[in-house]
Amino acid sequence: MTTTQKPPDMEVVNRAREVTQKAIAPRASRYDAEVLSPLESWNDLWQAGLLAMTVPQEHGGLELDALTYVMALEEIAQGCTNTAMTLHMHSTVQRFISHLATQEQQARFYPEVVQHGKLFGSWAAERGTSFTRHPFVTVGIHREGDGYRVSGQKTFCTMAGAASYYMVWCTAEGSEDIAHSMTLALVPADAPGMTVVSEWNTLGMRGTVSPAVQFDDCLISEGMVLGKPGEPLGVGVVEFFSLGYASIFLGAAWGALQQATNYCIEARYLPDPQPICHDPATQRDVAQIAIHLEAARLMLHHCASQWDDADVVTRGLLASKAKYLSTEAATMATQEALRLVGGRAASKSFPIERAFRDVHTCTLMPPSVNTMLANIGKGQFGLLREMYTAKEA
Amino acid sequence: MTTTQKPPDMEVVNRAREVTQKAIAPRASRYDAEVLSPLESWNDLWQAGLLAMTVPQEHGGLELDALTYVMALEEIAQGCTNTAMTLHMHSTVQRFISHLATQEQQARFYPEVVQHGKLFGSWAAERGTSFTRHPFVTVGIHREGDGYRVSGQKTFCTMAGAASYYMVWCTAEGSEDIAHSMTLALVPADAPGMTVVSEWNTLGMRGTVSPAVQFDDCLISEGMVLGKPGEPLGVGVVEFFSLGYASIFLGAAWGALQQATNYCIEARYLPDPQPICHDPATQRDVAQIAIHLEAARLMLHHCASQWDDADVVTRGLLASKAKYLSTEAATMATQEALRLVGGRAASKSFPIERAFRDVHTCTLMPPSVNTMLANIGKGQFGLLREMYTAKEA
Amino acid sequence: MTTTQKPPDMEVVNRAREVTQKAIAPRASRYDAEVLSPLESWNDLWQAGLLAMTVPQEHGGLELDALTYVMALEEIAQGCTNTAMTLHMHSTVQRFISHLATQEQQARFYPEVVQHGKLFGSWAAERGTSFTRHPFVTVGIHREGDGYRVSGQKTFCTMAGAASYYMVWCTAEGSEDIAHSMTLALVPADAPGMTVVSEWNTLGMRGTVSPAVQFDDCLISEGMVLGKPGEPLGVGVVEFFSLGYASIFLGAAWGALQQATNYCIEARYLPDPQPICHDPATQRDVAQIAIHLEAARLMLHHCASQWDDADVVTRGLLASKAKYLSTEAATMATQEALRLVGGRAASKSFPIERAFRDVHTCTLMPPSVNTMLANIGKGQFGLLREMYTAKEA
Amino acid sequence: MTTTQKPPDMEVVNRAREVTQKAIAPRASRYDAEVLSPLESWNDLWQAGLLAMTVPQEHGGLELDALTYVMALEEIAQGCTNTAMTLHMHSTVQRFISHLATQEQQARFYPEVVQHGKLFGSWAAERGTSFTRHPFVTVGIHREGDGYRVSGQKTFCTMAGAASYYMVWCTAEGSEDIAHSMTLALVPADAPGMTVVSEWNTLGMRGTVSPAVQFDDCLISEGMVLGKPGEPLGVGVVEFFSLGYASIFLGAAWGALQQATNYCIEARYLPDPQPICHDPATQRDVAQIAIHLEAARLMLHHCASQWDDADVVTRGLLASKAKYLSTEAATMATQEALRLVGGRAASKSFPIERAFRDVHTCTLMPPSVNTMLANIGKGQFGLLREMYTAKEA
Repeated sequence: MTTTQKPPDMEVVNRAREVTQKAIAPRASRYDAEVLSPLESWNDLWQAGLLAMTVPQEHGGLELDALTYVMALEEIAQGCTNTAMTLHMHSTVQRFISHLATQEQQARFYPEVVQHGKLFGSWAAERGTSFTRHPFVTVGIHREGDGYRVSGQKTFCTMAGAASYYMVWCTAEGSEDIAHSMTLALVPADAPGMTVVSEWNTLGMRGTVSPAVQFDDCLISEGMVLGKPGEPLGVGVVEFFSLGYASIFLGAAWGALQQATNYCIEARYLPDPQPICHDPATQRDVAQIAIHLEAARLMLHHCASQWDDADVVTRGLLASKAKYLSTEAATMATQEALRLVGGRAASKSFPIERAFRDVHTCTLMPPSVNTMLANIGKGQFGLLREMYTAKEA
Repeated sequence: MTTTQKPPDMEVVNRAREVTQKAIAPRASRYDAEVLSPLESWNDLWQAGLLAMTVPQEHGGLELDALTYVMALEEIAQGCTNTAMTLHMHSTVQRFISHLATQEQQARFYPEVVQHGKLFGSWAAERGTSFTRHPFVTVGIHREGDGYRVSGQKTFCTMAGAASYYMVWCTAEGSEDIAHSMTLALVPADAPGMTVVSEWNTLGMRGTVSPAVQFDDCLISEGMVLGKPGEPLGVGVVEFFSLGYASIFLGAAWGALQQATNYCIEARYLPDPQPICHDPATQRDVAQIAIHLEAARLMLHHCASQWDDADVVTRGLLASKAKYLSTEAATMATQEALRLVGGRAASKSFPIERAFRDVHTCTLMPPSVNTMLANIGKGQFGLLREMYTAKEA
Repeated sequence: MTTTQKPPDMEVVNRAREVTQKAIAPRASRYDAEVLSPLESWNDLWQAGLLAMTVPQEHGGLELDALTYVMALEEIAQGCTNTAMTLHMHSTVQRFISHLATQEQQARFYPEVVQHGKLFGSWAAERGTSFTRHPFVTVGIHREGDGYRVSGQKTFCTMAGAASYYMVWCTAEGSEDIAHSMTLALVPADAPGMTVVSEWNTLGMRGTVSPAVQFDDCLISEGMVLGKPGEPLGVGVVEFFSLGYASIFLGAAWGALQQATNYCIEARYLPDPQPICHDPATQRDVAQIAIHLEAARLMLHHCASQWDDADVVTRGLLASKAKYLSTEAATMATQEALRLVGGRAASKSFPIERAFRDVHTCTLMPPSVNTMLANIGKGQFGLLREMYTAKEA
Repeated sequence: MTTTQKPPDMEVVNRAREVTQKAIAPRASRYDAEVLSPLESWNDLWQAGLLAMTVPQEHGGLELDALTYVMALEEIAQGCTNTAMTLHMHSTVQRFISHLATQEQQARFYPEVVQHGKLFGSWAAERGTSFTRHPFVTVGIHREGDGYRVSGQKTFCTMAGAASYYMVWCTAEGSEDIAHSMTLALVPADAPGMTVVSEWNTLGMRGTVSPAVQFDDCLISEGMVLGKPGEPLGVGVVEFFSLGYASIFLGAAWGALQQATNYCIEARYLPDPQPICHDPATQRDVAQIAIHLEAARLMLHHCASQWDDADVVTRGLLASKAKYLSTEAATMATQEALRLVGGRAASKSFPIERAFRDVHTCTLMPPSVNTMLANIGKGQFGLLREMYTAKEA
């Protein structure tokens, strides 16, 4: 628990903070209100080298350790949850590429990010399945001449229409055995047969623009499949989604806490002679938020600092621990931040309102609270590894 | 605690349910999305006799007991929180009229409601004061010829531009002693010198349309002041706000629970053969919501059934008990209802999304959680009555 | 939810309060410290007619409705948790007798209670089984000449050595099908072959004196079996255990709240000029206890008032609701009562200390929190009745 | 938050674990049952060099950094909470000696510990005052010839009759200004005029043997006062009490978690074919305990690793953070550990029962939850330092 850990690269973290405060945060309200992909903020991230945080150094990326990565992401999420979430999706796809892609594929895809600032999405969810419960997909992929044909419908298609490639979670058609047939197809944004079929109008995370997308015999070329069927779930990357989510939850909640804190330091209500930060009940309320956010952040950083050396089973446990505690702390914190400020906080002119909606939306992403607690409990009982082995067999 | 209580008038409750299901609920989404006062739903309430729930029978109203009233309000809130909240504001003003108005004033105002379906608002809040902490106002009223002049600015002016009269909480100008100078002025909607000076764009309760309103030497005639300065806080009516809020919180949350319950009974995720209501963790989650909502409702009904015979100090305690438990239960319930359904619930096509926003907005209305707990604690220590007496002295 | 209910018989409730305050409460500390069955308090209950609360009127009992019963039990538990718990065990056995016993058996057993003040215990638990999970027993009963032979070991044998009859939950030997072979044997205290085989030294509920008891070919006569194999779980009586437990939890916790309240009203710490009840944080703490205990009591009384007319499935649900909320409220309340008083409360000279231990012990009795939540959740999903029907089939 | 920290001295931590498992843990149950000071375990600690953890190296002690200290203490508390608590009291007195004692005094007292294995207690509490609220004492000290006379009564006199010196918190007689008159007197166990005047019979922490002690003109010699009046609260040592308490709470709770975990891995209930660790609800329950204990431990270690370089104001904040989170986690964990095991856990043959009592007793030690939250809240609002400065002025 307290072994000496490699310290995070604070230069990168500070760079993320600076670009956020200067350029990303000021646009956040507009992306939310107008349901827009954060195109300009992606461009700023690219200019700052932060689109390539998980790209290997040999391909021109930062190849960050997990701790530095989550700390940088937390900074960005404090300013714009939508920018942080789409960046994290993209960065996780880059991790899949480093684990599953051939040298040829890497040589093709990484320059798209490093030199051209392209974004990559990841589409897994479907109506009628739930990754919060089981990783299950019905969108099918099968060989068609020199390439593949993709058919079916995806939901929650983040960055639809705005990214350049979409990593689509498919199943080799005809297979019943999802664990051994799960296949990742990288579909270019201009591939024919891909149609947005729903609106995106949600409580929060509105700037992730994640409608449903229909694939009608969508053709992709041979080099657009990553790895072999069944490989994607076993390389210790899918767990990285949760680790990053945790830092986004905490970043957004931390921002809300800062705003509420500042409000209480300044707000004075007649006939009180002092600002409300002198009210003992208000001190107690802010303390509850601060201590639980800080504990969740310690857990996140602790889990992230163990990440790079951990095997796939341990990563599943670390991800559940970090995301579970962040979920509980961030949902509580944003709700209590509303209460701390009072009725005024419900106005869209207070950024707390957006943080509240965003946190209560993105904490719904899989795995669910129940699934995370099940993982942590199995870990405590020593049942996680045997379960994983059984699944592999 | 278990004395025989007068049963509620179920005919009225059922009437409220019917008009809600048939006419009010279907419009709720539009009022929210477009930030509109629920004009059509007010008209339906009037047709059903429900605008006059707190108007004395001798003036053509229902003169409901408190228990029947909160049960009817709960039904309406299940369908449209905004309609229920504005109706409750209006109904509480009617209570002030019955306690403070002269026979002449009653003969003037009640027919406006009963025969013409007019709405009455209540505006108390101001920037720089907080009713969650102290009842304090700076908007001043003073004599001007045969009438009064009102000056200052109010915030959270519910039904601004849509109701016919606004009961404005003023202080007799020049007085430092709020408790003895608080004055209620009934300002007609067409009074000159009243200007809407802010937008209303909020997390929830969007259909209450509650912007800030500026009064610039707004003149009203002699008969438009209710009672004497200092009287409004002592007649056991201001406490009625909270009692009704509690039933609105619970109604909205109960609606969310019903929708989540139905979702779980129907939703099936591949490859599970059964709907998710058969999942033990899902059963546990729904149980937590249901039992706490039911307990809060028992408390509300218990407090409401004691209301009519209670003195002003006891009403303050009953109101705190009912509103506190409803606040905690309804905020938890709507958050957990989101989790129960999962990511899909964040879409505005699910009514749970609106209930979640509305509940997390209207539970911010005064008194705050801290104030309610302070009241309950003082009650437990026998300090409430002596505190009240001290204030009166 | 608010139909007119039959009011409780307050004369009985008051009688229970009086005998408790006068005679039962003063002995509670000694029974706890010395691990003694509350013999003298049982005698007082008998004198007050309260040993026969659930005995039919035609047999000389009070035949109380469920609401009056739980209210009386709550009064007794405020004074002595051990007396209340043993009385409740005994009273539930009387309910089994009224549902399962023949006229001849009733004519034999009821006078033992009404005229001679005898106690009846109920022994179900065993090492290696858990009623919190499944009703399962291995102690066997089979015919032997004109009577029966009972063999095996029971744990948590409340009132061992102090009651006159023990209702032992057995299974017809050789049967695998517990649901259809569960059999209740009434073993007289002087039956041969019954041996206490363990100590009783526990956190709380020490005066229930509940060691393990071994049955070695223990012979009982023909008339000592109640009803037919499989009948006991289907007559709507086993659910009554939980309903009574709930009132015991609440009674004990209510007592702790009263003591903590009185302490705060009196205790003054230098250099404060006023007792700590004037401290806002203390008011908040006591409020949390009081409001949740009151809500749990409303739920208990609500469930109890529906009990007598409810079928067996509904009783299971009512029992889970009442016991679940009481468990949560009473464990929280007694812990917070300790905190309210501070370090002094840990002394055995403060009755709060005993209430804390008793509540944290007796809330462990089946069904578990998980089982109760599962029941409530199934009820919400409409799955309780079909589950019950399936089990019956 | 993530600066590189000096790693703890794991050799000392392992040594503490070994002596605990081998010698200290096996005696814990007896000290508790018989209300005995852990004399033999103190002797083992001395032999292992652990009585001198906070004694400077130049005087033959270990002079541990705060992180190593709390980790070692946590190990000991897993085996015997009473041994850990008395050791921590003693070790904190050694810290006072290193900050306040003259070279001559140090040369006198440290050999008592290092060479002779003597224990030092610290007595601050009194009837009628509450350190959970204000540091206030009435026991007076004044000059008498070459020495001092101590008069008054102390409560919670840990190790009374078993330690060799008692550091008694006094006030210079006649002074009203506690902050500037607080004085520490080291009273030898054989000083005349010191009488135990109450029993020690408590919920938990029974082996700390902490009765009330009366001082009747108790005379001590000149060299037995540490520092100057008013100094003790300003040297950053009194805050160390809380830091150590936190590690004791967590150690005890961690032990309970381990025992409950092992129980669930082994216990199987008929007719289930598998142990209960395979039950999803049980996994969920254990997960809640484990994750919150782990988070509290991360916070404790984080605070401890910042301790040595922190000023007195920061130490107050670090202590509140560590103790608050440990209080909440450990009380929840031990209660849930009882539930996890079920009714059997209430037996004194399960060590969980003792951990539950001990944790719910020692978490009552000052500062209270309310005080800690107030500190954390003031820290968040930037009011802690100014408050401290104001107090000093």
